[in-house]
Amino acid sequence: MAKRIYNFNAGPAVLPLPVLEEMQREMLDFHGSGMSILEVSHRSKWFEDVLDEAIVRIKRLLKLDDTYQVLFLQGGASLQFCMVPMNLALPGKPVSYVETDMWSTKAIQEARIQGKEVEVAASSGDREFTYIPGQVKVRPDSAYLHITSNNTIRGTQWHSFPDTGNIPLVSDMSSDIFSRVFDPKPFGLIYAGAQKNAGPAGVTLVIVREDMLKRVPKELPTMLKYTTFSEKKSMFNTPPCFAIYTVSLVTKWLEETVGGIARMEEQNRRKGETLYRYLDSQDYYRGTAEPDSRSLMNVTFRLPDAALDKFVKEATAAGLGGLKGHRSVGGCRASLYNATPLEGVEALVDFMKEFVRKNG
Amino acid sequence: MAKRIYNFNAGPAVLPLPVLEEMQREMLDFHGSGMSILEVSHRSKWFEDVLDEAIVRIKRLLKLDDTYQVLFLQGGASLQFCMVPMNLALPGKPVSYVETDMWSTKAIQEARIQGKEVEVAASSGDREFTYIPGQVKVRPDSAYLHITSNNTIRGTQWHSFPDTGNIPLVSDMSSDIFSRVFDPKPFGLIYAGAQKNAGPAGVTLVIVREDMLKRVPKELPTMLKYTTFSEKKSMFNTPPCFAIYTVSLVTKWLEETVGGIARMEEQNRRKGETLYRYLDSQDYYRGTAEPDSRSLMNVTFRLPDAALDKFVKEATAAGLGGLKGHRSVGGCRASLYNATPLEGVEALVDFMKEFVRKNG
Ligand SMILES: Cc1ncc(COP(=O)(O)O)c(C=O)c1O
Ligand SMILES: Cc1ncc(COP(=O)(O)O)c(C=O)c1O
Ligand SMILES: [Mg+2]
Ligand SMILES: [Mg+2]
Ligand SMILES: [Mg+2]
Ligand SMILES: [Mg+2]
Repeated sequence: MAKRIYNFNAGPAVLPLPVLEEMQREMLDFHGSGMSILEVSHRSKWFEDVLDEAIVRIKRLLKLDDTYQVLFLQGGASLQFCMVPMNLALPGKPVSYVETDMWSTKAIQEARIQGKEVEVAASSGDREFTYIPGQVKVRPDSAYLHITSNNTIRGTQWHSFPDTGNIPLVSDMSSDIFSRVFDPKPFGLIYAGAQKNAGPAGVTLVIVREDMLKRVPKELPTMLKYTTFSEKKSMFNTPPCFAIYTVSLVTKWLEETVGGIARMEEQNRRKGETLYRYLDSQDYYRGTAEPDSRSLMNVTFRLPDAALDKFVKEATAAGLGGLKGHRSVGGCRASLYNATPLEGVEALVDFMKEFVRKNG
Repeated sequence: MAKRIYNFNAGPAVLPLPVLEEMQREMLDFHGSGMSILEVSHRSKWFEDVLDEAIVRIKRLLKLDDTYQVLFLQGGASLQFCMVPMNLALPGKPVSYVETDMWSTKAIQEARIQGKEVEVAASSGDREFTYIPGQVKVRPDSAYLHITSNNTIRGTQWHSFPDTGNIPLVSDMSSDIFSRVFDPKPFGLIYAGAQKNAGPAGVTLVIVREDMLKRVPKELPTMLKYTTFSEKKSMFNTPPCFAIYTVSLVTKWLEETVGGIARMEEQNRRKGETLYRYLDSQDYYRGTAEPDSRSLMNVTFRLPDAALDKFVKEATAAGLGGLKGHRSVGGCRASLYNATPLEGVEALVDFMKEFVRKNG
């Protein structure tokens, strides 16, 4: 038996064990091909089936109608920070952003680097990004409004999305895609680095509504145009086959083992409530996000500074890994992505209780 | 025992069996971490060791001195087609290219899309890209000369590189990196989609000489600047961890099992000679590349058109996969990358003989 810990990493992050086991089983011979999935041609039936399966499952899981296309890109969410304004800005119109933490700040920077007129429609920078702004007023001529649905570092999450009328929403959903039910209709584009809830590092999901593709300027470099990926079903060039294969297995697990996104959301609620309830029940640990903006994916908390290193070290020794907060904010963070089991959260709470008893 | 075929795919391509076996063994628990390498943080010691090992091995294998940096990017060689001119062009100077087949043609196109002044310094388009141009005259003010060291589709390879004096060479080495000894000094930048000789699809190796980094324009999008990757050791954002891990294992195999690039080159010569000798010994099959330009990595040949489908089908049934030529040229192609064993080539020749005997 392989040793396995409870993994609270923010990303790359825990994957469902049955997914890893299937990868392990078929590592030397994928579906009778006599080759690893790492070795088959991307133009082969073997890989095309994998790609098709991933697309179909994602469309079904997110209830995307035929106006949406699912694309697989490389370069991480960070490349999308520049591709979004490059592809979706409109001449003479501003692009709008809500600033909710470092990732949205970087997205804003990349739009500015390209000389776009950026409207910061709302910001939670006044209280250290510990909340999601309630009021978002967008300029009516804006090309899009960009939000970060879940803020991995600060542990905040949009619980309902701003109503922007005809202005398409664009969301970085890197850290909460597939975690809860939502209506895709207001979204012109959704992107997600896969390495949290969708798979491994090395592939970025881009879900794009077809009307957005008309905006793509013809003169962009080929590999930076969404239309290149759309026209060639993400196979203009060699795609990151193994990462897409992992996504196909993760989405299979979501459909066939978990039973879909609504069921996943229930489990995620139970997991989050288990940890937040404990955080709220005592004074040694403090949640850092404002209660109505709390994320179910990344639970950020603090304990007395002097105890931090000891806490992380002893937790790691107890088989609870990845609890250190992002280096830009310190403190602790427990990421409770889809593949984190409730038992892991319960084990964490038990450990936290025991730690206070000894050190509090 | 897993079923394994001889895999002649052009990329993604065969990987060394010991590499796949190590991946399989440690899929659920990487080096005692209790996590898969797919699940560890890219900021963890586990992954940083993998990254460092890959860099050190690549530098040692290619005998790169400290003026060279090894970077890991995403987006395939195709993204480099646009990043090279974006980063390395110089104001008021042309960029020069040798046109040797489809990949170089695409590289040229991407420079033109950006409005760069492109000099096609030589081309083998006059004889369907079946040879490497002997004479290359480059404009003395050129910012760089771009070549494709091995032309995957046509099966041609540069056997000595053009002497360009002070003008830096830039090479797409996607399909022959690590296959033979060469002097890196004339090269300002080398790039390679890993999915042929270096690892899986999903990571691009970029080897850059430090003086080239001074050319990078400040105002480029962050993710499109080589300096971003250079300054953060390829970790400005989440790198494609699993693909880099595979590269670290492939380069370990090259050093520790094969015994370095010179030994690899000997084996590659033996493999190539085995197949070319047979091609030259009979009339049923014809090699398509001109003899002095033949590639040791991709051996392209034709047989009577009417027999092509039968040949590929029966070869596949006999456990010889991936022999169909690129869809743009037809015919057959046997890719003999580093991980292809000599026995695979011998089995192919035996099969070819038997096929002529029955059908010739
Ligand atoms: C919400 C969010 N956006 C963007 C990123 C950056 O993603 P990548 O490393 O794939 O560029 C992260 C990384 O953690 C993130 O959490
Ligand atoms: C020599 C060469 N350059 C570039 C490419 C394109 O590489 P990628 O698919 O990684 O963009 C290939 C693909 O086969 C190739 O053989
Ligand atoms: Mg399977
Ligand atoms: Mg964040
Ligand atoms: Mg190992
Ligand atoms: Mg080629």
